[in-house]
Amino acid sequence: MKNIPKHAKIRVNKRAHYDRETVHSILDCGLVAHVGFSLDDRPMVIPMAYARDADTIYIHGAKAARIIKKNKSVPACLTVTHIDGLVVARSAFHHSVNYRSVVVHGRLREVTDETEKERALILVTNHLLPERWDEVRPMTAKEFKATGVLALDIEAASAKIRTGPPVDDEEDYAIPIWAGVLGVETRLVTSETDSRSLVSDEPNSLALARTKFNL
Amino acid sequence: MKNIPKHAKIRVNKRAHYDRETVHSILDCGLVAHVGFSLDDRPMVIPMAYARDADTIYIHGAKAARIIKKNKSVPACLTVTHIDGLVVARSAFHHSVNYRSVVVHGRLREVTDETEKERALILVTNHLLPERWDEVRPMTAKEFKATGVLALDIEAASAKIRTGPPVDDEEDYAIPIWAGVLGVETRLVTSETDSRSLVSDEPNSLALARTKFNL
Repeated sequence: MKNIPKHAKIRVNKRAHYDRETVHSILDCGLVAHVGFSLDDRPMVIPMAYARDADTIYIHGAKAARIIKKNKSVPACLTVTHIDGLVVARSAFHHSVNYRSVVVHGRLREVTDETEKERALILVTNHLLPERWDEVRPMTAKEFKATGVLALDIEAASAKIRTGPPVDDEEDYAIPIWAGVLGVETRLVTSETDSRSLVSDEPNSLALARTKFNL
Repeated sequence: MKNIPKHAKIRVNKRAHYDRETVHSILDCGLVAHVGFSLDDRPMVIPMAYARDADTIYIHGAKAARIIKKNKSVPACLTVTHIDGLVVARSAFHHSVNYRSVVVHGRLREVTDETEKERALILVTNHLLPERWDEVRPMTAKEFKATGVLALDIEAASAKIRTGPPVDDEEDYAIPIWAGVLGVETRLVTSETDSRSLVSDEPNSLALARTKFNL
């Protein structure tokens, strides 16, 4: 992963971060990634489950894999965004959003090596529900074969973060208009046990997911 | 807006919907859109504020507008995704996510007509904070000029929705492994008044935003 990608230079600003730790921390607590690539010469953006392993991101899904199979190595962009608050300013112009996002560039490759593929499937399952892989019925050979896994080896990545109150024009602070931040929270709260579940006690993975995502 | 776009046919499945009402309802309650387009022959996916007006989606931002200015009419894909729950199955293979998403295809055009541009700015402001436009200090001519607005006229759109419990292999229902759905809630709750705000009472737009997004 290069720290400052050439094509990102036009976007360098005070909200941009290129260090691994920031990029990884934002990727690691996302529920969904939006993956962009070109399909029949048109841009396509698909929401997908994912997981990170060092500087590789894994995604899975039969459909996307079919698309990729046609092309050996497809340029892709993967974006993860957390919305943390609506920034309410005294003028419409200075309204904003508090957020953390990461934009990753690289190429999608199909994972065919069985060891890497199994590792990726474990990581993607455990990304949303930590340690769930060890709670479930083991994967069959047929299921393993039917699942397509793609890897995006990160070539360049940049994070953008906005925090804090609105920043208004100095003269506007004298106007009696409410300003502040309306917080946005994403929370994993109530669970609903499947009516056919033989077990009613929640497994540990749900508690771990709540700890991981309810920041 | 065509109902069944040619390029979406490969993705037709039981989760797909192409009716206007479903597409519009998902678009109208999103906090952020992920906009994909090609930049220097590489796919790019950027999170952006947006608003819908009939079959046109407006986005704004100085940077994106600069990108678009170079190209008269850029093919784009805009995706809005709501995550509603983690679907916890008895096998890793049948784990899933309850979600509502819309994928829109069209072309980005810069909005230069002043009437359309003002309307778009009002819509984007009021999308996140209903009626906020009428609460704030009026926009100046300088601000109006400095803001880039892009329109995406919807050429094709498809919604995908998954709801309900996990669907396991029939024989797996006999295994005593907890299964169900862990709900994911996105909520606008607490607000923080700017330390320099002369007004402490929350404006009506915040209450409206909570009503709109806290479903």
